[in-house]
Amino acid sequence: MSIKIAIDAMGGDYAPEELVKGAIDAAREYNVGIQLVGKVDKIKEELNKYKVDKLDIEIVKADSIIEMDESPGTAIRRKKDASIVVTVDQVAKGNAQGLVAAGSTGAAMAASLFGLGRLPGIDRPAIAAILPTTDKPAVLIDAGANSSCNPKMLYQFAIMGSIFSSAIMGVENPRVGVLNIGGESSKGNLLTQNAYKLLSKHTDQYKFVGNIEGRELFAGDCDVVVCDGFVGNVTLKVAEGVARMVMKKLKDELKSSFITKVGAYIAKKAFINLKKNSDYEEYGGALLLGIKGVCVIAHGGSHANAIKNAVRVAKEAVEKNMNGKISEMYELNKI
Amino acid sequence: MSIKIAIDAMGGDYAPEELVKGAIDAAREYNVGIQLVGKVDKIKEELNKYKVDKLDIEIVKADSIIEMDESPGTAIRRKKDASIVVTVDQVAKGNAQGLVAAGSTGAAMAASLFGLGRLPGIDRPAIAAILPTTDKPAVLIDAGANSSCNPKMLYQFAIMGSIFSSAIMGVENPRVGVLNIGGESSKGNLLTQNAYKLLSKHTDQYKFVGNIEGRELFAGDCDVVVCDGFVGNVTLKVAEGVARMVMKKLKDELKSSFITKVGAYIAKKAFINLKKNSDYEEYGGALLLGIKGVCVIAHGGSHANAIKNAVRVAKEAVEKNMNGKISEMYELNKI
Repeated sequence: MSIKIAIDAMGGDYAPEELVKGAIDAAREYNVGIQLVGKVDKIKEELNKYKVDKLDIEIVKADSIIEMDESPGTAIRRKKDASIVVTVDQVAKGNAQGLVAAGSTGAAMAASLFGLGRLPGIDRPAIAAILPTTDKPAVLIDAGANSSCNPKMLYQFAIMGSIFSSAIMGVENPRVGVLNIGGESSKGNLLTQNAYKLLSKHTDQYKFVGNIEGRELFAGDCDVVVCDGFVGNVTLKVAEGVARMVMKKLKDELKSSFITKVGAYIAKKAFINLKKNSDYEEYGGALLLGIKGVCVIAHGGSHANAIKNAVRVAKEAVEKNMNGKISEMYELNKI
Repeated sequence: MSIKIAIDAMGGDYAPEELVKGAIDAAREYNVGIQLVGKVDKIKEELNKYKVDKLDIEIVKADSIIEMDESPGTAIRRKKDASIVVTVDQVAKGNAQGLVAAGSTGAAMAASLFGLGRLPGIDRPAIAAILPTTDKPAVLIDAGANSSCNPKMLYQFAIMGSIFSSAIMGVENPRVGVLNIGGESSKGNLLTQNAYKLLSKHTDQYKFVGNIEGRELFAGDCDVVVCDGFVGNVTLKVAEGVARMVMKKLKDELKSSFITKVGAYIAKKAFINLKKNSDYEEYGGALLLGIKGVCVIAHGGSHANAIKNAVRVAKEAVEKNMNGKISEMYELNKI
């Protein structure tokens, strides 16, 4: 039996069009079953645009939507028929093994936590995002689930992040660091100082490389970097903002004269590759780690390609038994 | 009488060579008097490499150096003859109107706070850094002076930052925002939630634009962004790391084939401009605001060009009476 992934087809800036298109591409490319959750007529309308007879795609009815400005906790309790709630429910019931959500991140987290529960030993679920670096990609955890954290949470993130890094990214003995503003153990705020102390006590569980600064992180000096969700989310958005800014400035410079335009035309393959290489769509979203189920949170602005890759990440997390590996650590008294 | 700027000639990765070279360039270009503080023979040796007869450059003796790994508070008290301590002392005595430091940031802050004192109404000095954006540059405050902050401090940063933005950057009615992980006032951690509330009460003093995320910040959506020094320093270093990464990837792509190499050669002016445009050296370092004196903190890796620009920033802060303007706000009961 192939793996089934449930997708909240109504969540995200380009729902349902791009969600449906990405789901079809994933079903075709990764040999995975898909459940599209949302308004049946709208999803059907999109599906009718493509040839999908031979694909394992079904529609699951969900008549309401949680909007971006709703309070997640309240909304998931009130709207039992919201697409994200029903999507999570498919995983809870065992009808699907993983889910993809591109709508309100808060609602996806609340619905998953409420509907699936936490893994043993994990105080708070966290978002693991994949960052490009000049070397191979790194994992940033927590990328936004918990605005305030304590050192113990950062330790749990380190465990989950290193399992993610080895299981999904294929890194042997992932190097784990604390995102900080200086190299010495005394640097930073109370959280990073105490997290440094705690993480350095458990070096049998991962390769601890100490504090990591932003410059080193993007130079590929570690495989997993832990931080609180506020700092992690700022990092993610600053990185995106700076990458966009540099690309925009590059474009402007290349357009600034006839001669630079000619050069740009000749070298255009380099720019296409660069854009693809810096594109978050290729990474396929972030995993919410620490819950009893596989939940991939895709960017709100995801197009079909990002959704397709998000399904791939969800499938891999199921195949590689990510959650089983985290539970094993608990059973071994290592969390 | 021309303005005098004291420079810690022994601080920074390329001291004293690049410090002395940058100082000479500044003296020549900006019609400013320079005091080079440090080991007399070493500074003389460097000065002898250039024609400096007609420039207003003097040497001030300081025989020890505070190293990067020393505890700043202890070091500045113990080493009274440290170059940074003597540099600050030149300003305290009125022999110079401003200073430039590229060594240990902690030591520069501690020495300035201890030697010059705080401006009235300011609880904690903060570092104001200049960030490039796709539009005009923005001011980030605090860029690393205070790892933990309260909302009142962020409010004071907003006042100082907007004075900096209008006096030094020439922005009329600077738009002030809180660096956060979402647009709504309820987003973020306790600090940003409460800072939002406090800052929105004082809109007669600046144009408050609410929360700003990393993506908007680098798109030029505000002129001044306030945050605690931990988040600010992470932002600064992540931005630098990402900009370097994108430039590296661009270079690699352009080198990847004969045809892209040809295109790159033809369009090379665009890449030179882009590099210059993304280069922190052009911005000349950050101002430590809230102390009784002008203190510019340059990047540890500053070359001569960065030092020259740091002197320019110091000179402008003196000329534009930055500190007088902050004190005025206090007298008007606005801090």
